[in-house]
Amino acid sequence: MSIYLHDIPLSQAQARLREALQDANLWRVLGAESIPLDENALGRVTAEPIWAEISSPHYHASAMDGFAVRAVSTNGAMPSSPIELSVVSEQSSVISYQLSVISEQLAVQAQYVDTGDPLPEWANAVIPIENVESLDKDGQISSAVRGPASIRIRAAVTPWSHVRPLGEDIVATQLVLPTGHTLRPADLGAIAASGHQTIRVARKPKVAILPTGTELVPIGSKLKAGDILEYNSLVLAAQIKSMGGEPTRYPITKDDFDSICERVQEAAQTHDLVLLNAGSSAGAEDFSSKVVEKLGALLVHGVAVRPGHPVILGVIARSALVLDGEAIPSSSEIAHLHWRAAQVSGKTTPRNDVTPIIGVPGYPVSAALTVDIFVEALIAKWLGRRPHELPTEMATLTRKLVSPAGDDDYVRVAVGKVGGKLLAAPLSRGAGVITSLVQADGLALIPSGVQGMEAGEQIKVHLYRSRAEIEKTIFCIGSHDLTLDLMAQFLAEHNRRLASANVGSQGGLVALRRGEAHMAGSHLLDPQDGSYNISYIRQYMPNIPVKVIALVGRDQGLIVKQGNPKGIKSLGDLAGKSQEGGVQFVNRQRGAGTRVLLDYHLNLMTIAPESIAGYNQEEYTHLGIATAVASGRADCGLGIAAAAQALDLDFIPLFQERYDLVIPKQFADDNLLAPLFDLLADSRFREAVSHLKGYDVSVMGTVILED
Amino acid sequence: MSIYLHDIPLSQAQARLREALQDANLWRVLGAESIPLDENALGRVTAEPIWAEISSPHYHASAMDGFAVRAVSTNGAMPSSPIELSVVSEQSSVISYQLSVISEQLAVQAQYVDTGDPLPEWANAVIPIENVESLDKDGQISSAVRGPASIRIRAAVTPWSHVRPLGEDIVATQLVLPTGHTLRPADLGAIAASGHQTIRVARKPKVAILPTGTELVPIGSKLKAGDILEYNSLVLAAQIKSMGGEPTRYPITKDDFDSICERVQEAAQTHDLVLLNAGSSAGAEDFSSKVVEKLGALLVHGVAVRPGHPVILGVIARSALVLDGEAIPSSSEIAHLHWRAAQVSGKTTPRNDVTPIIGVPGYPVSAALTVDIFVEALIAKWLGRRPHELPTEMATLTRKLVSPAGDDDYVRVAVGKVGGKLLAAPLSRGAGVITSLVQADGLALIPSGVQGMEAGEQIKVHLYRSRAEIEKTIFCIGSHDLTLDLMAQFLAEHNRRLASANVGSQGGLVALRRGEAHMAGSHLLDPQDGSYNISYIRQYMPNIPVKVIALVGRDQGLIVKQGNPKGIKSLGDLAGKSQEGGVQFVNRQRGAGTRVLLDYHLNLMTIAPESIAGYNQEEYTHLGIATAVASGRADCGLGIAAAAQALDLDFIPLFQERYDLVIPKQFADDNLLAPLFDLLADSRFREAVSHLKGYDVSVMGTVILED
Repeated sequence: MSIYLHDIPLSQAQARLREALQDANLWRVLGAESIPLDENALGRVTAEPIWAEISSPHYHASAMDGFAVRAVSTNGAMPSSPIELSVVSEQSSVISYQLSVISEQLAVQAQYVDTGDPLPEWANAVIPIENVESLDKDGQISSAVRGPASIRIRAAVTPWSHVRPLGEDIVATQLVLPTGHTLRPADLGAIAASGHQTIRVARKPKVAILPTGTELVPIGSKLKAGDILEYNSLVLAAQIKSMGGEPTRYPITKDDFDSICERVQEAAQTHDLVLLNAGSSAGAEDFSSKVVEKLGALLVHGVAVRPGHPVILGVIARSALVLDGEAIPSSSEIAHLHWRAAQVSGKTTPRNDVTPIIGVPGYPVSAALTVDIFVEALIAKWLGRRPHELPTEMATLTRKLVSPAGDDDYVRVAVGKVGGKLLAAPLSRGAGVITSLVQADGLALIPSGVQGMEAGEQIKVHLYRSRAEIEKTIFCIGSHDLTLDLMAQFLAEHNRRLASANVGSQGGLVALRRGEAHMAGSHLLDPQDGSYNISYIRQYMPNIPVKVIALVGRDQGLIVKQGNPKGIKSLGDLAGKSQEGGVQFVNRQRGAGTRVLLDYHLNLMTIAPESIAGYNQEEYTHLGIATAVASGRADCGLGIAAAAQALDLDFIPLFQERYDLVIPKQFADDNLLAPLFDLLADSRFREAVSHLKGYDVSVMGTVILED
Repeated sequence: MSIYLHDIPLSQAQARLREALQDANLWRVLGAESIPLDENALGRVTAEPIWAEISSPHYHASAMDGFAVRAVSTNGAMPSSPIELSVVSEQSSVISYQLSVISEQLAVQAQYVDTGDPLPEWANAVIPIENVESLDKDGQISSAVRGPASIRIRAAVTPWSHVRPLGEDIVATQLVLPTGHTLRPADLGAIAASGHQTIRVARKPKVAILPTGTELVPIGSKLKAGDILEYNSLVLAAQIKSMGGEPTRYPITKDDFDSICERVQEAAQTHDLVLLNAGSSAGAEDFSSKVVEKLGALLVHGVAVRPGHPVILGVIARSALVLDGEAIPSSSEIAHLHWRAAQVSGKTTPRNDVTPIIGVPGYPVSAALTVDIFVEALIAKWLGRRPHELPTEMATLTRKLVSPAGDDDYVRVAVGKVGGKLLAAPLSRGAGVITSLVQADGLALIPSGVQGMEAGEQIKVHLYRSRAEIEKTIFCIGSHDLTLDLMAQFLAEHNRRLASANVGSQGGLVALRRGEAHMAGSHLLDPQDGSYNISYIRQYMPNIPVKVIALVGRDQGLIVKQGNPKGIKSLGDLAGKSQEGGVQFVNRQRGAGTRVLLDYHLNLMTIAPESIAGYNQEEYTHLGIATAVASGRADCGLGIAAAAQALDLDFIPLFQERYDLVIPKQFADDNLLAPLFDLLADSRFREAVSHLKGYDVSVMGTVILED
């Protein structure tokens, strides 16, 4: 039993898959189909070059409403010496015309034409209607447009003026679009204009997505401990769809070797690619590698990429994989060589009678990144289009990152522009944290060979969002408050995005000093005089002019289990109960305003921190505290009422404190933050905040300090 | 009758539409609908904030395959002094556990857990399986994973290590996604993880597209002069679809006032927006403004934007538009004021009982840009998402542009990066040339108030393509040859895009000197010695090291009508016939290699250019010459056989000439051009070119000069 995977470098893994597909003649456009030329062709990829069948326009067309003339008959017309041309009806001009026998009669004719009308054969220019005077049969100015007896012009025209000559847009036989072009709206028009009614496009690759795992339950199930919601297949299907493939989501298969084999075999018959999720690691119930070994050949097990390293790449034989009358031995160690040898010697089953399979890791972030890394390039090849490439930018890393030296390490980052500097702030690196992908503005890559990077270093970021979106992002780093979630919601309605990172009040001020945020939420009590924030701002951000605005007054207190089973009433009870070993506390991290508040009151009450069980157990948000209490990890923690309410916990209010927004002056005057100031005066926002328990909005918007 | 439109500035036009919609309570998200949470939700826009219903994980979960332990029981474990923990079965550990009564027994337990398993209540950390030694009941190393009697560890673990605590990803009640968010694959996973099975999204705005025009015929029709293929509705529908709307394409309506009224009325009842195309100008058969005046209110007729100025904005009453019991008078001059007054006084029909209508100009480029300018913002508002914004870059303009001072003038440009400089090369400015939109890499804006810009000036370009695509573009400026179309096709298969602009051979060399192209196609004959290109390169590009590679040998000759009705055999016949007024010639532009060739031979034959009728009539491409002959504008022109063949014309070969690629050394060594050199050695490419009539591929790839 192979417990340890053997991770190989990414480029080598990709090359193995490519070679196997090349050997199987599957490294190419899979096939073409004809589809009608309608708006559903949008986004499809041309499978053949599109050559023009007809020209456009297919005749010399008037480009204006006006009068068709021969240019020569306008020679000499000037404001002071106009020329008059007699107007002929459309009927009378339908005469056979020979270039060599222009009669004087025809040379002085004009004929009314609408935009798009064919030029009469004898004409070679158009005079726009606004440049002529219409005359009646007595030579008087007339208001008739189509019916004047003659027109008077006061300027000569050059040949072919205001005419769209045949082929101006498209000449029959020219290349309109090459193969491998992803169709956009205007392309459809050009294809129609060049005489086509249908288009040959690459057929969509069919991708089977097989979720496996006894612990998995479908979306919407009532959950018990140990159940895992199966949503990877949803994310993978959406990825495949956005890449131009056609996903099939299979129902969940239990962790049973034979059931998985059966379903993989079935999917491989009818699909171009099988994604087997998960079981790709090397645990007791990880069957994927054995399934691939049994049904085909295992090419790769383990890639040096994080997150996502337990990736499996292989091929499944659509019919039995036989070499010289014997099944190919397929252990993970030697299968690749066997496979190659068999392919080259031509002794296996027909060359393209295989279906590639990818064993996708189970953690959602690993799963999504695996598909981005391995599947996008494959689908691009199968469609014949260029691979999607994210735009890249260099950004300044806001904090130190460590990384295993041997791996390509993809780090989700929030990206914002603060004071002209593009910043990359690392998000959670947990492979199970899908919200980190939701919040991510890009992926920063720490390449294999680099063990980590320091804060302030330049890092290359592959951007998920456009530069325009990023420039509408307000970076808020500091203390967490539920009001920020509501603020994010309201700001989104005003074309701003709020990216908030929770590092505690002091961390926020430090970030402001470093120029790494537009604003910070802070509720730092000064133990000297009971004031909030000002003394800390002066200490942490000397010489930086700021504007400080009150956001809310809020209750701080003890978050306890429903019914307060330990009967806790004050901070005194913590130390007291702790002596008896009864009360387990959970604390906020050092630097958090709530921690300062706790220490201030412990000091007033002369309670020693070490007398509190759990004083050193740290959480980074109010909801983290509430979660710890709700889950039984602790009996109580200091936090805000809203967090207790959110998780149906009880709350014992102890103090009211002020939560302020600290904004450097340079950003306070910036248009980026204008919607934020509007929001503070918006009664809808006030009302929404006041519905949160324990919040006092009377101070909202009060300017506390303005340098 | 109002012949002249009154163009108002773009911002004013947009404001009028917005105000009318605000008055009608239609400047908002139109409505919401619940859809299932599956991959079809991709690209939809959230209509409500998504708050987490459950936490994820919803229990403390093991993050690894390994053994659950209490961290405290590992204290002191070191390589030299291991600790052994007895393994309990899953059954025996299911006991009621009280934090306050940790028995010595429990403290030294370990229990096997798979990744994702719930942590036993008594445990608070996991030791990964690869960090333990499994022991059998005799204390000997065992290979059992799940079933060892005990495990030996050689390092302590901290509490909560390798555990995903409850809420690590999502805490119940937190904001998962705000309103107005366009859903991506990972978002769907996060929504599922937070306990939702359906999503509230903005309903898709329904947009009716009404093509009108007696001259219009459907795609695929057999064409006669004057027929215009109706493909605007296709492009518009595709645009609406890509913006997130739901288009309905109506059949073509003839130019008949009552029929158009009837259809507009019908469409307005069932759609959120009506696009009436075309008839938006002020010609005899332009009914759009009158239709809007009759059925509702005309807000704008004419916007100072090019291309696209004859735009109509208005609203259609779903029921009769009545004010104080009388129909509102609605001439274009006063309708807007009446409309506003009526809305404000509340005396009209119910406020939102109108449907906006946009009269879209008929020229395809104007139509597409009008939809981009007016409809995208509207649909964004109706969906509640941020408007799409194209990324912008500053680029160097390659040639002078003139522009009417009063208009915002959008110029389609090809964009390429040549030697580190981003270049914008203006494409055809004709509003009828849809291929200019196909070829465009972006739109450059000459804002109202600016009358033009000089070559070399920096211009702001809104980019259609990603920077990555643009950096894979080979800019080829110079003489046109059909081989370049084939080359574009082959290069597309090798992840390169060929953007070619045809300015003649000398123009190409000048562009190379200015650093505005990667290569130029050139066939310039030196009249001194009969050599090709070299002397011109030295003259036009002094001191620039180049590589010159032969592409093809090709026949030049006279392109004549089928059957050569004028019996032309040589250049001598041109002058001769011309004396009798019989042969009409069409010439290439000054600087073109073909023009030089003509002049060379005219000189040898002592034929005076002025003796040739049409010598001054210029076309810019070989196909332009062929088109002029095919259409009867000329009897013959000098050009290449392939162009004659393309349009079924006859060809009288006169000379063979060499067509070379001229490539500055700095680009010849660049990776960008590598696929081009591969191509010149590719037998498939040679064969494709040799199938064109009059081409000799024996010289292909020969290096003529390398500095």
